[in-house]
Amino acid sequence: MISFGVLGAGRIGKVHGNTLANSGRAKVAYVADADGKAADSLAKAVGAKVASVEEVIKAKDTDAILIATPTDTHADLIEAAAQAGKMILCEKPVSLSVERIEKCLAVVEKAKVPLMIGFHRRYDPNFSVLEKRLRKGEAGDVEIVTITCRDPAPPPVSYIERSGGLYRDMMIHDFDMSRFLLGGEEIEIVHALGGNMVDPAIGKAGDIDTAAVHMQTKRGAMVIITNSRRATYGHDQRIEVHGSKAMLRAGNIHLTTVECANGDGFTSDLIPFSFIERYAEAYRLEVLAFLDAIEKGVAPTASGHDGLQAQKLAEAATESWKTGKPVKVK
Amino acid sequence: MISFGVLGAGRIGKVHGNTLANSGRAKVAYVADADGKAADSLAKAVGAKVASVEEVIKAKDTDAILIATPTDTHADLIEAAAQAGKMILCEKPVSLSVERIEKCLAVVEKAKVPLMIGFHRRYDPNFSVLEKRLRKGEAGDVEIVTITCRDPAPPPVSYIERSGGLYRDMMIHDFDMSRFLLGGEEIEIVHALGGNMVDPAIGKAGDIDTAAVHMQTKRGAMVIITNSRRATYGHDQRIEVHGSKAMLRAGNIHLTTVECANGDGFTSDLIPFSFIERYAEAYRLEVLAFLDAIEKGVAPTASGHDGLQAQKLAEAATESWKTGKPVKVK
Amino acid sequence: MISFGVLGAGRIGKVHGNTLANSGRAKVAYVADADGKAADSLAKAVGAKVASVEEVIKAKDTDAILIATPTDTHADLIEAAAQAGKMILCEKPVSLSVERIEKCLAVVEKAKVPLMIGFHRRYDPNFSVLEKRLRKGEAGDVEIVTITCRDPAPPPVSYIERSGGLYRDMMIHDFDMSRFLLGGEEIEIVHALGGNMVDPAIGKAGDIDTAAVHMQTKRGAMVIITNSRRATYGHDQRIEVHGSKAMLRAGNIHLTTVECANGDGFTSDLIPFSFIERYAEAYRLEVLAFLDAIEKGVAPTASGHDGLQAQKLAEAATESWKTGKPVKVK
Amino acid sequence: MISFGVLGAGRIGKVHGNTLANSGRAKVAYVADADGKAADSLAKAVGAKVASVEEVIKAKDTDAILIATPTDTHADLIEAAAQAGKMILCEKPVSLSVERIEKCLAVVEKAKVPLMIGFHRRYDPNFSVLEKRLRKGEAGDVEIVTITCRDPAPPPVSYIERSGGLYRDMMIHDFDMSRFLLGGEEIEIVHALGGNMVDPAIGKAGDIDTAAVHMQTKRGAMVIITNSRRATYGHDQRIEVHGSKAMLRAGNIHLTTVECANGDGFTSDLIPFSFIERYAEAYRLEVLAFLDAIEKGVAPTASGHDGLQAQKLAEAATESWKTGKPVKVK
Repeated sequence: MISFGVLGAGRIGKVHGNTLANSGRAKVAYVADADGKAADSLAKAVGAKVASVEEVIKAKDTDAILIATPTDTHADLIEAAAQAGKMILCEKPVSLSVERIEKCLAVVEKAKVPLMIGFHRRYDPNFSVLEKRLRKGEAGDVEIVTITCRDPAPPPVSYIERSGGLYRDMMIHDFDMSRFLLGGEEIEIVHALGGNMVDPAIGKAGDIDTAAVHMQTKRGAMVIITNSRRATYGHDQRIEVHGSKAMLRAGNIHLTTVECANGDGFTSDLIPFSFIERYAEAYRLEVLAFLDAIEKGVAPTASGHDGLQAQKLAEAATESWKTGKPVKVK
Repeated sequence: MISFGVLGAGRIGKVHGNTLANSGRAKVAYVADADGKAADSLAKAVGAKVASVEEVIKAKDTDAILIATPTDTHADLIEAAAQAGKMILCEKPVSLSVERIEKCLAVVEKAKVPLMIGFHRRYDPNFSVLEKRLRKGEAGDVEIVTITCRDPAPPPVSYIERSGGLYRDMMIHDFDMSRFLLGGEEIEIVHALGGNMVDPAIGKAGDIDTAAVHMQTKRGAMVIITNSRRATYGHDQRIEVHGSKAMLRAGNIHLTTVECANGDGFTSDLIPFSFIERYAEAYRLEVLAFLDAIEKGVAPTASGHDGLQAQKLAEAATESWKTGKPVKVK
Repeated sequence: MISFGVLGAGRIGKVHGNTLANSGRAKVAYVADADGKAADSLAKAVGAKVASVEEVIKAKDTDAILIATPTDTHADLIEAAAQAGKMILCEKPVSLSVERIEKCLAVVEKAKVPLMIGFHRRYDPNFSVLEKRLRKGEAGDVEIVTITCRDPAPPPVSYIERSGGLYRDMMIHDFDMSRFLLGGEEIEIVHALGGNMVDPAIGKAGDIDTAAVHMQTKRGAMVIITNSRRATYGHDQRIEVHGSKAMLRAGNIHLTTVECANGDGFTSDLIPFSFIERYAEAYRLEVLAFLDAIEKGVAPTASGHDGLQAQKLAEAATESWKTGKPVKVK
Repeated sequence: MISFGVLGAGRIGKVHGNTLANSGRAKVAYVADADGKAADSLAKAVGAKVASVEEVIKAKDTDAILIATPTDTHADLIEAAAQAGKMILCEKPVSLSVERIEKCLAVVEKAKVPLMIGFHRRYDPNFSVLEKRLRKGEAGDVEIVTITCRDPAPPPVSYIERSGGLYRDMMIHDFDMSRFLLGGEEIEIVHALGGNMVDPAIGKAGDIDTAAVHMQTKRGAMVIITNSRRATYGHDQRIEVHGSKAMLRAGNIHLTTVECANGDGFTSDLIPFSFIERYAEAYRLEVLAFLDAIEKGVAPTASGHDGLQAQKLAEAATESWKTGKPVKVK
């Protein structure tokens, strides 16, 4: 039984806390949240005590810290938890700043504690099976990776303003997915397009709501990512890998398999509109993967380095969009 | 160049006449039709002369007769053409009466001329590929054959009245398809359900518009057929064969591959409403298959015997529906 | 918090016990099973005590009894639980004998306790949505219902021998599904075909492994069911309803959305081979539906009457198969 | 009856010549080809005379010239035909040089003859329906256009060497499709990636075999194109348009609708490997669209201007690939 302290009792904190409590392999000893009600509610649900962030990190009866607080607190909390010798599962991203991530990872390195970054899409049962089949060579050499990610509707402008921009906030998942699908081959060059087509208020806030990025590795393999903050049919999430031997792709999951045929055509069901619903199983498997790694004593993935590399790609895309020029990834 | 006389210049006569004329392997020498205008029009289109039925059958410069006249003339015309020593391609059915077919086939047998019955669905590129894969053993032993056939809308009651009833008029194609997919294994027992759910006038005319038949071979293999005279989404035509090694199925062909995703779901295109459109390629390939058989000197299929057996199944189904009892096929 | 006694700690008992324990709306107070180890294991998992069947039924601190014991004990246990004034959720079927069911339901009636029969497929998220859309009239009048159910592989012959035969053991689910989809319209006539094509040992045991049944209501609506004890591609579960306004269908759920395109074609993933896996969500929702009914004070479905009617159809099909004749449902 | 002279009796010349001859609305009076046998063969098939290119262009009994000769002759032949007052249908492209196209179009302008460029994909029944639905506003404002085009295998290096490179030879179709789908909105900026991943010999010849281009209009709409000279599963041709109201897409056409389910999964059929087979109907409809335009006296599309604009995009992409920088379209 691995004992956890959970920092953050918001949407994701709740999902992860419950997964831990129901896993039969871990327990939640403490919950901390600036919002006392949220902390109480989650603590009650998972049979934990409420404590302050500092108390949770330093508690002698916890082995691991799950960080599900706002983004701008992640790096500080990772450092504190690492210095307290705790194993860490932190929601993405470590920080919006590449420099800050590098500093944070140095602290973790020194503390020699395992750190996993919560890129939950790696654990989606469809995407993870596709990746495993890729690694077995089913598609041969990877030539073109295409990732489509469209949200049903934009978040509030107040959120956009603190988000670091679309490339860092939304496309960050696709940058990590690119690296995951490429299996260790790193991106060399990034070129980004951005547009403000969904909501003028987003443009006024200095951000975009529609974006296309293409990237290339030294070998020549290409990654194409498109993002939109609007999709009338749900949370569109697709990946496709074209290789020398085959094409592998994973499509959307429809709400049901029900189809209706009438004079309008053949209509199949919508796809989920909520990412929490779309990725419920991925969030669950992410936490179990962390437990697996700890139990087996292996390094969890996505690693802190993966978090850093994804952020570098987001930086490069942001710079490319602002300058109009392709950007080399450092 | 095989020279044809075409009897009947209606819808199917036109389709087949044009296929012959464009085949580069045959020519249409004569066209006959009670409707002089129709005969003229087709003759002009294919570069043929108009003549009477008797003249066409006896013409010394024709090798083959294509019969596309009303059903009740088929048996007489086949006999006349056979006695004149012509090769014959006749639209289904030979006759609505099993006895009449048997008598007719005896005449053809005696005349030793090739006779092919136009069960066009055997030549549909999807169904014929499925059958070839079945014969190669891809599905193993055939266990359950399911045939779905739904027309978009019922024909006029005046047509229904002369049609011989749904089992003989509409399901006859599915009876032949059953035998085609079973590859020579004959049906032993037939049980039929019938209902009048689409148009009360059809019921008043003594017929049904919705029907289900299931049948079994001695070995135990089952065939399930459902028919409806109504389908709001087009001419629904599907076959499925469940076997010991695999399931093979052939679905509908959509008008286009265009799909629209919006708040209503994911809508793919309709399927054809006209059987002439749905089976355009099948009609063409049927005629070419007849030319192939003639050129190679092999017996064409579907044979007269196939026409007879399908009619026996239609008889059995009709009797089963009327008596409510299962009927053994003679 | 509704307090349950769970009778039977086998495969389904475990699934349901865990659903109750995790529901937040019920608790499992007792578990009984002839196999002491199984009882201990489940009791531990859900925080319950182990007791004898009699003790569980009579325990004052239970409100409801969940019966997941072998089929031949169901009727006796339902009666005992009813006489003890408990609410009852019993796995299908009440009994393999129509007479026994009728006697049992009379006892329940007298005791005035709610009884729900576990026809889990009604709660499958796909099938239940389809049924709701049917009831709203989306397909118009129901004309043809087609239900396809194929198991990946036959059960052991020892199971077959005690099963009551395919129609009572396997097709019973499809009989209930038929009535569910017909929305209260009862079947009048049943005709069954049966074959022994999968395993000769099943035939020797007096049973069949491949079956087709078609049935008709007074209005004329038809239901077509096919079953096979073999399917190389998984647990095939499909329903299709053809109506005057539309066709509604619900297809199989694939293991993942991953598709591979190469020289063999475009291959999508398998479907589950285990019915426990295929219907995991249905089993969960079945138990929650029972809790809903209890909490709202309404009669749960499927009711005891539904259980009786499905059994009557299974009887009719069995008789039809044995006599070769269509059978009227009483 | 419009009388045509056909220049070029190769693969496309034959396809178009036969379409004209079978149209019932046009005839082929002359055929010219440097290869006398090819000219004879086509002339015989369509009932035409063989003549020299000069004779065909100047023949008094022709109204229109169909140009299906090698690319480097197109501009000269268009000019000659225009100066002879003929209507012109010329296979794409007018020339590999933007300057040459501009000069050629000036000649056509002066001669006031209709000129249509054979971008056949505009006439594909799937793509043209999608475009019509776009123009009706079904998808709302166009935001992201994604075009996927993969050839089964690369052409010979000897062909590559004279092709002008992948962007001009292969992606030119996708540039035209982009403009077609954007409905008149012009591309402002182009960035291209290129890789040599299929055949090293193509790299040695100075070309690429894998490419990704993304482009943007002034409004912000994005177009993403990917090309590969290799696809193990056939000639992959897909378009997708994401708009403010809906996503519209058109997928691949499979050889048949046959699907096989077994222990490997559910496998649907391959797609065509030959572009001639894939686009047979598009080629036919292209020629009929030219006849329509002529008969109605309207300007045919794609116009010479469309040919020029597509070439400008191919130039921009080639320059972008060579310099690594985004290129503004003039």
